[in-house]
Formats: sequence, C-alpha cells, structure tokens
Amino acid sequence: MGYSIDMLSLGQTGTFTKTITESDVYLFAGVSGDLNPAHVNEEYAKKTTFKGRIAHGMLGVSLISTVVGMYLPGPGTIFMDVSAKFVKPVKINDTITAEVEVVELIKEKNIVKLKTRAFNQNGINVIEGSATVKAPLKG
Amino acid sequence: MGYSIDMLSLGQTGTFTKTITESDVYLFAGVSGDLNPAHVNEEYAKKTTFKGRIAHGMLGVSLISTVVGMYLPGPGTIFMDVSAKFVKPVKINDTITAEVEVVELIKEKNIVKLKTRAFNQNGINVIEGSATVKAPLKG
Amino acid sequence: MGYSIDMLSLGQTGTFTKTITESDVYLFAGVSGDLNPAHVNEEYAKKTTFKGRIAHGMLGVSLISTVVGMYLPGPGTIFMDVSAKFVKPVKINDTITAEVEVVELIKEKNIVKLKTRAFNQNGINVIEGSATVKAPLKG
Amino acid sequence: MGYSIDMLSLGQTGTFTKTITESDVYLFAGVSGDLNPAHVNEEYAKKTTFKGRIAHGMLGVSLISTVVGMYLPGPGTIFMDVSAKFVKPVKINDTITAEVEVVELIKEKNIVKLKTRAFNQNGINVIEGSATVKAPLKG
Repeated sequence: MGYSIDMLSLGQTGTFTKTITESDVYLFAGVSGDLNPAHVNEEYAKKTTFKGRIAHGMLGVSLISTVVGMYLPGPGTIFMDVSAKFVKPVKINDTITAEVEVVELIKEKNIVKLKTRAFNQNGINVIEGSATVKAPLKG
Repeated sequence: MGYSIDMLSLGQTGTFTKTITESDVYLFAGVSGDLNPAHVNEEYAKKTTFKGRIAHGMLGVSLISTVVGMYLPGPGTIFMDVSAKFVKPVKINDTITAEVEVVELIKEKNIVKLKTRAFNQNGINVIEGSATVKAPLKG
Repeated sequence: MGYSIDMLSLGQTGTFTKTITESDVYLFAGVSGDLNPAHVNEEYAKKTTFKGRIAHGMLGVSLISTVVGMYLPGPGTIFMDVSAKFVKPVKINDTITAEVEVVELIKEKNIVKLKTRAFNQNGINVIEGSATVKAPLKG
Repeated sequence: MGYSIDMLSLGQTGTFTKTITESDVYLFAGVSGDLNPAHVNEEYAKKTTFKGRIAHGMLGVSLISTVVGMYLPGPGTIFMDVSAKFVKPVKINDTITAEVEVVELIKEKNIVKLKTRAFNQNGINVIEGSATVKAPLKG
C-alpha cells in the first residue's frame, strides 16, 4: 500500500522516468484511438512546426498519473482531478521524467493536493499541472 | 485536416466511443508503467469499493483527447491544456463515450475552449472537464 | 536506485502481484515467438490435462525478475543466474504473486542469493527457484 | 505435435533467431511490469557499464523456451525446470539465436535434459543454461 496522509509531508516528491519510444506512441494510439497524423504519419509530421512525429500529450500526463498511483502516494490512492498545461512537445525518443510534489494536505478530508510537471532529458518542462487525490487509508 | 476556427460554432459537439477491454487496460498499464493493483490485480481489486479492476483514469481522459485530435477540431489541433474531474470509475468492459463541446471561440488568438465529458453505457458521467486548444490553421 | 548490499538483510522479502490475462499471454507469445498451442489454441488446450490455455512458464519467471529489478534489490541490480522449477501451471486469469527472499549475502563480492517462488490466488506455489544477483552499488 | 522421446537423439539441436527490438523490450517491460531504468530509461542506461538500454535477461531465456515449446521437442512438451546464467547483456537491436541441445534421454520417465544457450550476431554467448522437460506423448 501507498503512503497514508499521516505519512506525507509538504514538499515531498516522487518521480518516474521513461524514454518514450515509437512503440509507446503506437500502442497509445491504438488503445486511445488517437491516430492523429501528428503521432503516426511521419510524412505529415515532418512538415509541421515539430519536424517529426510527437507523442500524445496524454501519454505525458499518464506518466504523472503513474507516479501518483505507484509511488506518491502510491497504491490505494484515488484520483479526484487532474489539470495539465502542455508547454512543449514530447518527441519520440525523449526521456521524460514525471514529478509530483505534495503542496497541500487536508487531513480531515484525507485529501492531498499535488503540483505536477514532466520534463525532458534537457531539463525543459513539457507539462505543468496539478492533481487532487485521496490518500490511501491506513491498512 | 480538422476544422479551422471559422468552421467551428458554439455548441458543436464531437464524440468517440470505445468499449474499454482488459487488453486496453493492460496495454495502458504497460505503456504508462502504472501497474497499480487497482488495475492489474483482481484479487486486490475485488476487495476495494469498486469490486474489481478499474481502468486508469487517464485512459478515459485519453479518449477525450482522441475526439479533439481526430474529430473536433481534428488533425492540426494543438492541445494547450486539459482538466478532468473523475466522478465515477470506469470498469473493464464499460463502453465509454468521450464528448467535447465548443463553448468559446477566441478568433483573434485562434483559441477554442471545450467542455468535455466521458460517460458510460448507462449514460452516467465518469469524467467531466474542459480543454483549451488552438484550432488547425486553414489549408 | 535499489538497495546496496549493506542495506539488505537475510530473510528480507519483496513481492509483485499481477492477474495474468489473455492479453499478457498473447503479447508474451508475440514477443517471444512461443505460439505453442498450449498458449494460443483454446481448442487444442481444452483437450489437454490443463483443460484450457495456460500462460508461458517464463512469464511467471519474468514476474520474479520484476521483483528483483524493481523492488529487491531494485534498480541497479545485475542478474547473474536464475533457476526455476515449474510445479503447477498458471492458467489465464490466475493472480500470481512473485516473491524473492534474501538467503545469502556475500559482501566481499557484492553478491546476493535469493530464494524465489511464485504462487497463485489460492496460495499454491506455481514456481520455486533461486537467483544470484549483484546488488546495486552505493550512489 | 512435437517429437516424442523415441524420435529424439543425443546431440540433436534446435534454434530460433530474432532481432530484439526496442518494441520487444518495451512490450516485455509492460507485460512483466519490469520498467527498470536499465530497460526503459536511455539517459540512465547510457551512463551504465552497458552504455545504453539492454533487454531483460528473461527475454533471452524466453527465446530458449520458444525453441523448446515450438521446435525441440515442440508442441506437447511440458517444462519441468530451467536454469540460466547471464554471461553478457543483450542490447537493443542485437540478433539473438536461442539453441537447445539434447544431452540426456531418460526414456522410462519420458524426461529429456537439454543444454541451452543464446548467442548474439557476433557468435558471443549471452546466456548459458539447461532445462528439463517431459517429451510430448505419442499421438
């Protein structure tokens, strides 16, 4: 089980890092149904501002969700809401680190507010956002 | 290419529907790295409030993103931000319809504001949210 | 990073649990090339002793490897050898827990010996084995 | 059906060869849950001894299992045990040949002992091991 609210403290962070491959983008396209040419048509994509296929924005947000569900607070967490601003594209083969930070603990309601971001191998933010979750209950 | 801003009108809607299978949830787990027991451990999940494995919340939000990228406004759209509130869980084998509705058009900036939701086969909302996008430019 | 050898103690255990689905078995078949009818031909499989398709034995051993690589000792571990005895089949939809236990620490060589097993939702062992790994080096 | 024990002879070999792609490694990570940075984080992996992401050791052992289940002895074989020593890493895009050789036939128990190995495109062994199986019964 993950961290119950008593085990969490302001400023605590968790991360998860993955190199986003063509395989990830294609599986994500198949599962979501988002076969937008920006993601799966290299001929189209190389004529865009991005000069090549980019990952789905939601794939980046999903990595943030992975941190929440797996590491901080971890298993038992219930997601209430999520917000994300897409500040830079994620290109195929970028290595993305998703990070969440505890910014508010509402103990009487068991609610945790998180500041979130995802950044690439150059330290550039690609997503900035927030999430509200219910912390796992004590065993 | 999708709809440029001049082709969009307030109240216009687009949808995409998919039955969310175990295969979708498992592929999503593998791509995102979110192998939280709520998604991949039936023995754990059947003891939770949800009485079984549920889909990742982000999988539902991804279907909303699919409508935006594929249908309304469609190819050429650039995602600026997304917000989503998870109001009910998505269970494996639920049929989810993602819907977006144009609620504001800021023509001088080429920005479209969308109200979004996803609902299940019983018409119950599972996600409620919003998104801001840049409309595709005219051919 | 995972646990360096100084952080490990005899008897320490780590686990990972996953319900093994048809999707897992089919992806494993595709990646490994093992499309043996016991795994992918239900008509054949229902006439065998097992009365239906079973998971690849190596899929079970792979869950043990997941515990080693992700949790105990975790990232930075180098696998030296693995042995596994297949004591019961894994059927599709079984929930399998892989477990590793530290049974020997050879500190001067940074080597950890692990006793391993995987068991199903009924507590029945399906795999029993061992592994030798090099622990992650200290940061 | 595969070879029954009467059709097998000492020294008989079978092989299966596959180029291990990034897609294989990522699917294997998703199915097994082993998203260790050595496999999915290129930034981390290029700073390791291996100078880049490597395949899961179990993916190599799975190719050996493929030879057993598909070719020698083939369909109908029941796996009893497997041992493997990881002697070199498998890098993404290596072409791996898995090979099994019959080294003992215990006809009264229908048991076949196999010597196994996997080697790369340069002829270098990456895995060395053994397996014990029950041969398929005669149709």
